[in-house]
Amino acid sequence: MTDESLTKLPGEAYSARIRARFWLTGDHEGYLGIGRITLLENIQTLGSMSSAAKKMGMSYKKAWKLIEELNGMFDEPLVIKEQGGKAGGGTLLTERGHQAIADFRAFEEKFAAFLQQESQVLFEEK
Amino acid sequence: MTDESLTKLPGEAYSARIRARFWLTGDHEGYLGIGRITLLENIQTLGSMSSAAKKMGMSYKKAWKLIEELNGMFDEPLVIKEQGGKAGGGTLLTERGHQAIADFRAFEEKFAAFLQQESQVLFEEK
Repeated sequence: MTDESLTKLPGEAYSARIRARFWLTGDHEGYLGIGRITLLENIQTLGSMSSAAKKMGMSYKKAWKLIEELNGMFDEPLVIKEQGGKAGGGTLLTERGHQAIADFRAFEEKFAAFLQQESQVLFEEK
Repeated sequence: MTDESLTKLPGEAYSARIRARFWLTGDHEGYLGIGRITLLENIQTLGSMSSAAKKMGMSYKKAWKLIEELNGMFDEPLVIKEQGGKAGGGTLLTERGHQAIADFRAFEEKFAAFLQQESQVLFEEK
């Protein structure tokens, strides 16, 4: 592959875009994509699994099933149940959970910039 | 988001990987992903739609349906039927078809390198 093969002559120029999705994998089975990150962020904001599930139109059972899978991805869980307390205990993100969101969102920005730049390199009129 | 938030202390290090898929879009509806590129490459190598479809365990009808969609993606087709000839005419890639394969494969290498590098930046023990 030479640079020459990517050079478009004026009459040959065509418009195209690179589209992509990414997800994170961990130490164990499972993955973290945009839907699961959104669930974690809603838990982070609302402090409650049932509120987070409701906000996403997801059943409480389904939300817990996802979280159980996410909790098994790394050597530490991403989400824990808060024990007792006056309100009966909420749902909290662990340090690993916060880190997973931060890593995902930081990479997301880099990824978008990379795709935009490479779309231009490959496809825009030279 | 500061760099600090991505720094792992030794005890906090965890292993994770960024995984991703990409595809190309064109002037019009449709997309070019790895399966469709493989079909184009088989047509390029074998010079025949039926041989290409057979190699991929795909029906001739299904293969043509995909190619018709791909041909509609850009202002020029990617694949054309060769008219007549002694062998009754084969199936050929156009210049745009060759270019689409070259662009896809060139970007694929950059993409893989980017993901590997960013997996290290984000997740490996500092």
